[in-house]
Amino acid sequence: MLVGVIGGNKCNPEIAKIAEELGKQIAKNKWLLVCGGLGGVMEATCKGAKEAGGITIGILPTHDKSKANPYVTIPLATGLGYGRNAVLVSAADALVAVDGGYGTLSEIGLAIGAGKYIVGIQTWDIKGIQSVETPGEAIELLKTWQRLTK
Amino acid sequence: MLVGVIGGNKCNPEIAKIAEELGKQIAKNKWLLVCGGLGGVMEATCKGAKEAGGITIGILPTHDKSKANPYVTIPLATGLGYGRNAVLVSAADALVAVDGGYGTLSEIGLAIGAGKYIVGIQTWDIKGIQSVETPGEAIELLKTWQRLTK
Amino acid sequence: MLVGVIGGNKCNPEIAKIAEELGKQIAKNKWLLVCGGLGGVMEATCKGAKEAGGITIGILPTHDKSKANPYVTIPLATGLGYGRNAVLVSAADALVAVDGGYGTLSEIGLAIGAGKYIVGIQTWDIKGIQSVETPGEAIELLKTWQRLTK
Amino acid sequence: MLVGVIGGNKCNPEIAKIAEELGKQIAKNKWLLVCGGLGGVMEATCKGAKEAGGITIGILPTHDKSKANPYVTIPLATGLGYGRNAVLVSAADALVAVDGGYGTLSEIGLAIGAGKYIVGIQTWDIKGIQSVETPGEAIELLKTWQRLTK
Repeated sequence: MLVGVIGGNKCNPEIAKIAEELGKQIAKNKWLLVCGGLGGVMEATCKGAKEAGGITIGILPTHDKSKANPYVTIPLATGLGYGRNAVLVSAADALVAVDGGYGTLSEIGLAIGAGKYIVGIQTWDIKGIQSVETPGEAIELLKTWQRLTK
Repeated sequence: MLVGVIGGNKCNPEIAKIAEELGKQIAKNKWLLVCGGLGGVMEATCKGAKEAGGITIGILPTHDKSKANPYVTIPLATGLGYGRNAVLVSAADALVAVDGGYGTLSEIGLAIGAGKYIVGIQTWDIKGIQSVETPGEAIELLKTWQRLTK
Repeated sequence: MLVGVIGGNKCNPEIAKIAEELGKQIAKNKWLLVCGGLGGVMEATCKGAKEAGGITIGILPTHDKSKANPYVTIPLATGLGYGRNAVLVSAADALVAVDGGYGTLSEIGLAIGAGKYIVGIQTWDIKGIQSVETPGEAIELLKTWQRLTK
Repeated sequence: MLVGVIGGNKCNPEIAKIAEELGKQIAKNKWLLVCGGLGGVMEATCKGAKEAGGITIGILPTHDKSKANPYVTIPLATGLGYGRNAVLVSAADALVAVDGGYGTLSEIGLAIGAGKYIVGIQTWDIKGIQSVETPGEAIELLKTWQRLTK
């Protein structure tokens, strides 16, 4: 299963800690992490996943893969600018939104519109997101969802 | 100036009336209308603009331009699926959101994130949108914005 | 009808003259010109079309519409990088390739692959392109094609 | 290193054998395979790579990942239609073209235009492709290229 994690290019240390733990648990469940490949929430999640032995896919907006954060194991430099948000959402089986700004909001809109399952931690309060407090709760919901949709 | 109008593929008659009036006034100001080219708010706005002699550009998700509503004068069949939302927002100089669901929300997120000026009529309540009641007020704000940014 | 004209961002004066004449005749036939919106063949064709009163649509690779050549009447800043080539080909009803390098070759491949009608003037010798010598001959072929496919 | 393999959605058994061997050797070199994820050359290459323990990434044109061939280990359903060709080329560090039709030609054009290193086996004869006879020779060229560009 490809789990998309969406969130801002910058974040505070508390959010980074949540994102890192989320990445760790995604890897421990043998899921693949797909994200935007840049800094902030994306970097912290990739760090957690990579350090737990997981695969981290970064769908980058640029043609230049050197823009990927150092914890991306598979950088995909799309060159699509904002258009890469649509690729990320389309590719993910389910998503977790952590914090995040307007880019994240665009991905939340696309995800719910496309009928994707999406869980949120301290993010935009939009009808259609399952809101939870901790990475552990997000993982539990993803596991349940995966079981039910198999 | 390219004015992007975003809104759902379906809408009620009251919203359609607003969208049609908005399209009419966009055309009367000699602005070009750019939208997603399908039904609902998009169709009503194109109808208003076309009947007032304007040019209406439909950025379609499919490779097939026959999906455009009958009031689109320039159909651009992108084949990009959801990715066309990013093209629409990138191409518009300023936007008006009317009503709308999750696709519209994704465009609102992209637009504010990209620093585009965006006015809303009965749409998502997101910080960064200028909210107004009528097409006339939306047009006045666009005129002011255009004057200030020239 | 949307006629796509594809060709390089730079060209010699002889090619520019051909492209300008092609643009002029596209406009005189009341067809819309769609191209990549940049320099070289694109600029010369837009010049010819605009000066003959036509509409010229530039599908730009950047998010910044100021990159369009001065003869583009409708700049669409896609932000898609090379991905814009696919949008251009998808949007065009038929295409004319004039001269051109590898970007043009990519568009020729997409066009023939998608079953689009494509005429070539001094361009890549690829099976599937109708090769002609002059803009006038290209226009005649487009007219015949349009009549037959109506 | 991400090695892009491009080729048609259908191919004859001789080409399939070449593609499978190519995939095998890509995996044995610990490179990641990125391709369009569908049938023909793509499927044969993925088969070879997966059976040799490699990772195979399929950049699909649809929103639906079930379209991927059974040897794709990471399906990325982009929903971009032909636009996915640009993503594939942009993401690959170097490419090998095997056989192929017009879609492959479009990718060759994009690749050379973007300055990517590209080797060809029984494919389009385009200036800028290094042409070889066997998968083994293609792999040797990729290894040399990788050494020189490190």
